[in-house]
Amino acid sequence: METAQFVLASRPYGMPSPSNFRVEKIILEELKDNEVLLKSWYISVDPYLRGRMNDTKSYVEAFQVNQPIKSGVVAKVIESKSNKIKTGDIVVGTLPWSVFSVENADKLRKIDNSKIPPYFYLGLLGMPGLTAYIGMTDICKPAKGETVVVSGAAGAVGLVAGQIAKIKGARVIGIAGSEEKCNLLKEKFGFDEAINYKTTKSIRKDLGKICPEGVDAYFDNVGGEITEGVVANLNFRARIALCGQISQYNSTKLPAGNLVMAWILTKSVTLQGFIVRSFSDRFDEVLTYLTQWLNEDKLKYTETIIHGFDKLPDAFLGLFSGKNQGKMLVEIE
Amino acid sequence: METAQFVLASRPYGMPSPSNFRVEKIILEELKDNEVLLKSWYISVDPYLRGRMNDTKSYVEAFQVNQPIKSGVVAKVIESKSNKIKTGDIVVGTLPWSVFSVENADKLRKIDNSKIPPYFYLGLLGMPGLTAYIGMTDICKPAKGETVVVSGAAGAVGLVAGQIAKIKGARVIGIAGSEEKCNLLKEKFGFDEAINYKTTKSIRKDLGKICPEGVDAYFDNVGGEITEGVVANLNFRARIALCGQISQYNSTKLPAGNLVMAWILTKSVTLQGFIVRSFSDRFDEVLTYLTQWLNEDKLKYTETIIHGFDKLPDAFLGLFSGKNQGKMLVEIE
Repeated sequence: METAQFVLASRPYGMPSPSNFRVEKIILEELKDNEVLLKSWYISVDPYLRGRMNDTKSYVEAFQVNQPIKSGVVAKVIESKSNKIKTGDIVVGTLPWSVFSVENADKLRKIDNSKIPPYFYLGLLGMPGLTAYIGMTDICKPAKGETVVVSGAAGAVGLVAGQIAKIKGARVIGIAGSEEKCNLLKEKFGFDEAINYKTTKSIRKDLGKICPEGVDAYFDNVGGEITEGVVANLNFRARIALCGQISQYNSTKLPAGNLVMAWILTKSVTLQGFIVRSFSDRFDEVLTYLTQWLNEDKLKYTETIIHGFDKLPDAFLGLFSGKNQGKMLVEIE
Repeated sequence: METAQFVLASRPYGMPSPSNFRVEKIILEELKDNEVLLKSWYISVDPYLRGRMNDTKSYVEAFQVNQPIKSGVVAKVIESKSNKIKTGDIVVGTLPWSVFSVENADKLRKIDNSKIPPYFYLGLLGMPGLTAYIGMTDICKPAKGETVVVSGAAGAVGLVAGQIAKIKGARVIGIAGSEEKCNLLKEKFGFDEAINYKTTKSIRKDLGKICPEGVDAYFDNVGGEITEGVVANLNFRARIALCGQISQYNSTKLPAGNLVMAWILTKSVTLQGFIVRSFSDRFDEVLTYLTQWLNEDKLKYTETIIHGFDKLPDAFLGLFSGKNQGKMLVEIE
């Protein structure tokens, strides 16, 4: 069977461009025992994939040139040689950016989309939701009445992180890249305040006004100058969950020097880098909480769905200019 | 009674100079109830005092221009109106840089110098020793067989931090600023390896060779480029105790950009800034350990003693060019 598949055509230097991706036609082999044939339904594009396009040692293996790009995918089972997963089932797994694919059933998880949209398993109930929960509850640890700042607040992770801080009783300020996103954060997602980093003259001063008693915890998805503005407002013994540095992923030069280390020292701040995979033994527990809050309407979610397999590179590139509200997904018709 | 006293003549911009200090003659008032008259014996000069010379909000109050500079001092009691502290006692406290001073007895601690030199209470059994213990055992937490790097290793804090890591069974690499210091670390203080940052071409590459299995914990006294070289070699889930940033204290421009945040993220590193005062409820416990290790000869110590009250500014300035081995002190004759 033939399918279209995206491969990494070349490693990006700085900001990726469509030329770093190439569609190929490949022939899928016949199913072996325990394998299933899948048709991709929703493909997740995520900022962390940018790191995998570099040829550097990191916590996840680098993509290879001329080899497929992979990410989280919700797929329909078209054909099955597995006892556990049947034709017609909906599954989620880490799969190539292709229309059809063959995978061992042991690497897939069957999902129930009778009550929630299937793509929730790539967002709120997937890696972004798990990441938000671990970073907020285990590292930021907001106490009732404390003030928490979330950068990249309108993204797949930030949206959930901020709402979890609200559930924990904190005051939450989101930083996002448009007035529309800021309004959404306040009106739909319950953030107390939001700052548009593209129009503010100084995040540091804005936060100083909004948070006269300082900031107790910071969930950082973006790094760079935004982080500098937040860290300047941190209180003694504040916590930083270092979840992402999207402002730096495409940088070809060293980030501008800043005073972050000096403040971390003098304010006795704890900064913890983390990747959600390290906490896999807690995923069941976390998903129980997230599902419960979703059912109780305490957690809301949104997504930006781009239609068409060919749009995968555009959707991915759009992450770096903030084209998404919530989870960015590509739906394959 | 008349005494000489150093005041802050002006706030330094960048590297301090002797002109930022001025000796004044002042008249001490008669003792009130519970006060004692002290003659300074050993005055401690410490890198963190540089921060107090700036007019910025920090964890310790800024020194005021034309007001005395204060630091840890061991003093002899010349006269007493206290029931607890008598003439002839030796005490330690935070006192002005003056030959004589008057202080409330409640703010002083009587010390026993019958078995150890009195200035140990400003070093190994004082703030530097407490800082080293807390940073190494509570934040770096080296397990047996792990690899620990200490920057500023030949300084008052670094010397103790490295030895505590050895006591805990770790392999310890020190970074210091001369061949003499590096030899001292290895030959007298039991460090496994030492790197001279002034002559190495690349701390990153040197550490890569010395630590093929990576670095598990980093006790940072210096910051800047040295820290970048160490962080590049950190293992997954490594710990950083952010104790000092002496390379940056006199900087008038932003530090050079570096990749520290990116590595902290991808390696799931925990970085904790700390100041020892936050742990004051544990000082008795910590001093018990330090004293025991000193008595068992597991902890060694050294100091650089400058003679003469007038040399206080020189001794302080010498810290920033690494003129000290171990604790830097001024002895008042």
